[in-house]
Amino acid sequence: MTHPWRAIEGGITAPAGFQAAGITAGLKASGRSDLALLLAPAGAVCGGSFTTNRVRAACVDLCAERLEASGGKAQAVLINSGQANACTGDLGLIDSHRATQAVADQLGLSQDEVLICSTGVIGVPIPMDTLLAGVAPLVSALGSSPQAAAAAADAILTTDLLDKQVALEAELGGRTVRIGGMAKGSGMIHPDMATMLGFFSCDAVVPADVWQAMVRRAVQRSFNSITVDGDTSTNDTVLAYAAGEPLAVEHHNALEQGLTTAMQQLARAIARDGEGATLLLEVQVEGAADEAAAQAIARTVCGSSLVKTAVHGRDPNWGRIVAAAGRAGVPMDPDAVALWLGEHQLMAAGQPLAFDRAAASAYMRERAASTYLLDDTVVIRLVVGQGSGTATAWGCDLSDQYVRINADYTT
Amino acid sequence: MTHPWRAIEGGITAPAGFQAAGITAGLKASGRSDLALLLAPAGAVCGGSFTTNRVRAACVDLCAERLEASGGKAQAVLINSGQANACTGDLGLIDSHRATQAVADQLGLSQDEVLICSTGVIGVPIPMDTLLAGVAPLVSALGSSPQAAAAAADAILTTDLLDKQVALEAELGGRTVRIGGMAKGSGMIHPDMATMLGFFSCDAVVPADVWQAMVRRAVQRSFNSITVDGDTSTNDTVLAYAAGEPLAVEHHNALEQGLTTAMQQLARAIARDGEGATLLLEVQVEGAADEAAAQAIARTVCGSSLVKTAVHGRDPNWGRIVAAAGRAGVPMDPDAVALWLGEHQLMAAGQPLAFDRAAASAYMRERAASTYLLDDTVVIRLVVGQGSGTATAWGCDLSDQYVRINADYTT
Repeated sequence: MTHPWRAIEGGITAPAGFQAAGITAGLKASGRSDLALLLAPAGAVCGGSFTTNRVRAACVDLCAERLEASGGKAQAVLINSGQANACTGDLGLIDSHRATQAVADQLGLSQDEVLICSTGVIGVPIPMDTLLAGVAPLVSALGSSPQAAAAAADAILTTDLLDKQVALEAELGGRTVRIGGMAKGSGMIHPDMATMLGFFSCDAVVPADVWQAMVRRAVQRSFNSITVDGDTSTNDTVLAYAAGEPLAVEHHNALEQGLTTAMQQLARAIARDGEGATLLLEVQVEGAADEAAAQAIARTVCGSSLVKTAVHGRDPNWGRIVAAAGRAGVPMDPDAVALWLGEHQLMAAGQPLAFDRAAASAYMRERAASTYLLDDTVVIRLVVGQGSGTATAWGCDLSDQYVRINADYTT
Repeated sequence: MTHPWRAIEGGITAPAGFQAAGITAGLKASGRSDLALLLAPAGAVCGGSFTTNRVRAACVDLCAERLEASGGKAQAVLINSGQANACTGDLGLIDSHRATQAVADQLGLSQDEVLICSTGVIGVPIPMDTLLAGVAPLVSALGSSPQAAAAAADAILTTDLLDKQVALEAELGGRTVRIGGMAKGSGMIHPDMATMLGFFSCDAVVPADVWQAMVRRAVQRSFNSITVDGDTSTNDTVLAYAAGEPLAVEHHNALEQGLTTAMQQLARAIARDGEGATLLLEVQVEGAADEAAAQAIARTVCGSSLVKTAVHGRDPNWGRIVAAAGRAGVPMDPDAVALWLGEHQLMAAGQPLAFDRAAASAYMRERAASTYLLDDTVVIRLVVGQGSGTATAWGCDLSDQYVRINADYTT
């Protein structure tokens, strides 16, 4: 996808007018920072995307209801890490209201303009005295520096190994437009802390319904296209705020490309940071009936335990890939299947090819997730028919380390 | 489920008139037995259930087409292990036809009355000279002794640790009716050998369409209710033959209970035999909208990597169970959720209870899959609402041994 966006330094506060903060309120036993705030300029529109899990945390209900009621108007979001505030009954909703009221009071906003996201242990109430005592210092810490953005990006983490920020810039309609973002991922060292959260900022504005549709599509092509272990959290939330001068219609496509790129960058970072992962797995599917079918196949291959263990073992095991594609629940043409692992073609017209097994294995062995500077992506490309549907999904390998991390932890 | 069926010694040849054989034809590099035959009495009806994977082996197409064309009439099935005959193009279908023709010639049957199932490595043609040379000795070995049944049950295995047989008996309508069965499972030590095959025999007969419907429902409640690692094979097949005196309509329900029981027993044995498994996981779901919804939830919980690793670690981690149930894609009422681990209740009305964590963990530690004689089943019972839908799914824990087995194998 060619587009006008380039990466720049910074994060969620890179776009003009956005402020952020992150502090240690004392919600986490570890003593790490645990309370973050994002404040958009007045008049911001906010698009949201929420977990499809039937068991939703109180904060997710609150966000969805406020955005629905306001038609996408919201200006701030409080994020606490340490407690997910899920499976906490009526108290959970009361606590979410109290927290947003406290932030609204400090900022001089209406309570309806403030949202809240929580991540951490399920079934444990938020220590509200601790949280409420943190609101004033949090608001005092608001700033638009890269340091403020980094503090916020750090405070939303639970078990992620690395923080996850993005900032992009493009010239659209004779001015500079910026998009910023931060996310936390699916590190599952501590059970029930699997929540994925993503926050985005943009200093150009489009109508709220247009923005909401852009957010939905971009989430579909990014956060909904990653899979670490197939489990969906009770708290997964993406919120994207846009505020500033309106952007002309002819630049809407470019804006959506930027938003999609920003979300994909953080989604890939989350997949890379999967527990025990030693590489990033990228599955490209072509020739499906439509984009949804392609995505179903890409996600199924990416999530297959057999594929994930084969990739972990650097084994070019094409049979597992094709068998996973076949069970994705969407049409494919077995006789049209073609398959590549990096540059190595393993199948054509539905049948295995002779290929250099050692070279294909070496291609995977050269990938390592030890640093972002190396190319740590193993690319599987799969043609499944003559259709025009294409999609990409991202995941990681399945290591014995993943099992030990998740089995040895005692609640 | 109370029913008149009791377990008896024997396997697929326990019902009157059924013969079986298993020999070493030389298809497996290991030298283990690899060719089996089941022969039903003349006039048998056959019900089949096949993989939903879009990539199907040639033998699966052949079985489905012949049963469809004949309205469920078939008398024999040849089973080879060693090569799955999937992703083998036109040659695969030609070889399947040749093999069934050879068996039909030896038995004096029409080719259409003979089916074939293959299991083993994907993408490798069957060495047809070896297989065809084995047909005459295979037919000579046919017998109805328990030894003949055991030889057949052994010859269909690929990487299973144990063979899997069942035989049941009941008095129905003043006579003894027997059901026999054998299966192979999802040991995935060798990649692409994940095929699940099940074969059943019954010496009472019902109309072919009634039998086919019984088989479909029984498969749904047994083999389609187990999950080892979520991957579905290109070759999965269940065939059930019924032959003998017709059974009066008032006994059809009892017959179906017997067939379901036989299939569940082998399905549980397959789950127990999952790679690296140390216990059998049984997830009972109640209160769902209908049986399909209950099954979706039970299967999702049973297949969750987070649940499987928690159980492996003997960790009573209720949060992972509820979160998995919530993403099953069917309605549930979070406020109605109640959860038991064995006799230990962990949740009520959607919220966590105080419970004896050490005792709940000990309940799981006492389970071990080292022998079938011990009780090695960890039971999770989950109420998800007020509906009448109930279902049970079976699986196993996810161990680091599973990963090592699947990652270290080099194709």
